[in-house]
Amino acid sequence: MNNSFFAKFMPKEPKFVRLLTEMAEVSAEASKIMVVCVKNTDTEKDIEYAKQIKVWEKKGDKTLITVFNELNTTFITPFDREDIHNLANCLDDVTDYLNSCAKKIVIYRQKQLPESAETIAVLIESASKMIVEAVHGLTSIKKNAKNIRQICADLHDIENKVDDIYEEFLSNLFANEQDVKEIIKLKSIMRELERAANAIENVGKIIKTIIIKYA
Amino acid sequence: MNNSFFAKFMPKEPKFVRLLTEMAEVSAEASKIMVVCVKNTDTEKDIEYAKQIKVWEKKGDKTLITVFNELNTTFITPFDREDIHNLANCLDDVTDYLNSCAKKIVIYRQKQLPESAETIAVLIESASKMIVEAVHGLTSIKKNAKNIRQICADLHDIENKVDDIYEEFLSNLFANEQDVKEIIKLKSIMRELERAANAIENVGKIIKTIIIKYA
Amino acid sequence: MNNSFFAKFMPKEPKFVRLLTEMAEVSAEASKIMVVCVKNTDTEKDIEYAKQIKVWEKKGDKTLITVFNELNTTFITPFDREDIHNLANCLDDVTDYLNSCAKKIVIYRQKQLPESAETIAVLIESASKMIVEAVHGLTSIKKNAKNIRQICADLHDIENKVDDIYEEFLSNLFANEQDVKEIIKLKSIMRELERAANAIENVGKIIKTIIIKYA
Repeated sequence: MNNSFFAKFMPKEPKFVRLLTEMAEVSAEASKIMVVCVKNTDTEKDIEYAKQIKVWEKKGDKTLITVFNELNTTFITPFDREDIHNLANCLDDVTDYLNSCAKKIVIYRQKQLPESAETIAVLIESASKMIVEAVHGLTSIKKNAKNIRQICADLHDIENKVDDIYEEFLSNLFANEQDVKEIIKLKSIMRELERAANAIENVGKIIKTIIIKYA
Repeated sequence: MNNSFFAKFMPKEPKFVRLLTEMAEVSAEASKIMVVCVKNTDTEKDIEYAKQIKVWEKKGDKTLITVFNELNTTFITPFDREDIHNLANCLDDVTDYLNSCAKKIVIYRQKQLPESAETIAVLIESASKMIVEAVHGLTSIKKNAKNIRQICADLHDIENKVDDIYEEFLSNLFANEQDVKEIIKLKSIMRELERAANAIENVGKIIKTIIIKYA
Repeated sequence: MNNSFFAKFMPKEPKFVRLLTEMAEVSAEASKIMVVCVKNTDTEKDIEYAKQIKVWEKKGDKTLITVFNELNTTFITPFDREDIHNLANCLDDVTDYLNSCAKKIVIYRQKQLPESAETIAVLIESASKMIVEAVHGLTSIKKNAKNIRQICADLHDIENKVDDIYEEFLSNLFANEQDVKEIIKLKSIMRELERAANAIENVGKIIKTIIIKYA
């Protein structure tokens, strides 16, 4: 951390955008593993995937703490402190929910997941990549405003799609599954994916706020 | 949005209180539909009610975004920015939980709800009307302080009542219902109503904070 | 509340740290009762323990409101307002989750809890005592920094332990319990304990932030 007196008054764009991009990359990596994890039916492999996602989740946690420490020691920030704070928290949420999902797959020794799990995981993966692009785009906010706006709109659409898929899954689950234990376990696992998609939409909302203020 | 230079320095009471009142009216409208929805046993009609509530929920979302944009572009606010921010978020929560409740009724094709659902929905409806009055009263905060304080106390009482009803419902559900799927579905639907009542109490708490600071 | 003009400019350490310590003591008292409550198998006694915890929960709520009112009327605070605000909220969460746990034990008339409930309750009790020490230590932040840092690290370890115990409990529950109603009830009760432990870790994180800024 550069704490020298003058550094405090230097433009801080590169640092914060770099850290936030790192956080976005972390959730993109976690979401990539998640796609493989939900397709897989081997418990031993699920344990391995959950461990890999956990590694990313810890890396994200560390970067989050760095962001907070930098916010506390930096006089001039490229955007409102609150927006940086919220964006970092929300990016962390995405990875956290993916981590919770993987953990639950392991805890419940859930071998088979419905097809909708893969569909949602793939949507989350592509949304996560778009977030990396949008967050990185904040380095030249005026130049990239149009593209970032489009990404935020796409993130919103993806969340709507996930919502529909999740609701149809729930509806079918209660209509067709007779094993109530299975209902509880699947509902609980899928809920984490749906939460990750929600967090992704929130990331989009915060980025949009920044664009409105600074583009 | 009026962004002219001088407008930024003009008193902003009317704008924010008007927007917040709009949000309160949105949840009051949603809660009115909810009362009819929980009484109804026809699935097709439930779908219709859920759609109507969704329309209000979207309207609330839009107003919430307007509040945030206004906060970002207004220099002088009638109360602390944070209070306006929290109040708007909390009013939005009320409508969101009502929307989730209606969605779940549809997803689970739940025809019959326990009587306690209606009792709670009616309490939420009357609380929502009181919130409209309290929020609107913030236009003349000193004049209305006593009345608003009373409303906040009443909102607290209503939440306590809802809590008791919800707990008794849960207790009876587990004691008497044999169909575990039914338990899961009803618990999940009723939980959203209870959350809406919680959000209502939170609205009351934030309004009370504003009264303490400005009355 | 001392609202005199000059008092506003006086150092405010004693007041806030005292109030926050009070909140920590409230959750420590609640956690002490929780240990007895989870061991007990008599429904009448559970009702009694839940009432006692509720008394502490209300006391905590009152202190929380005092903290907020003081924040609103105090010009100079010993640490960032936001940190005091978050710390108070988080201390309140610990007691709230303990209260929810006790309520659920009563609602579900749950006589027998798994051994893991006691193990977790004991961990929460010892963590709560450590929090009292850490918060009280904020009176002489530079002198106590090393000790407080150690406590925050210990709180993190305790949360990790609780996580592991909770996950093993869930895994066993679904593998061995045949009564699905029992699964739902136990999962729901234990979830509140796990949430209390999470809140405890969050308390540790906020205290660590304060130490980083002021020690």
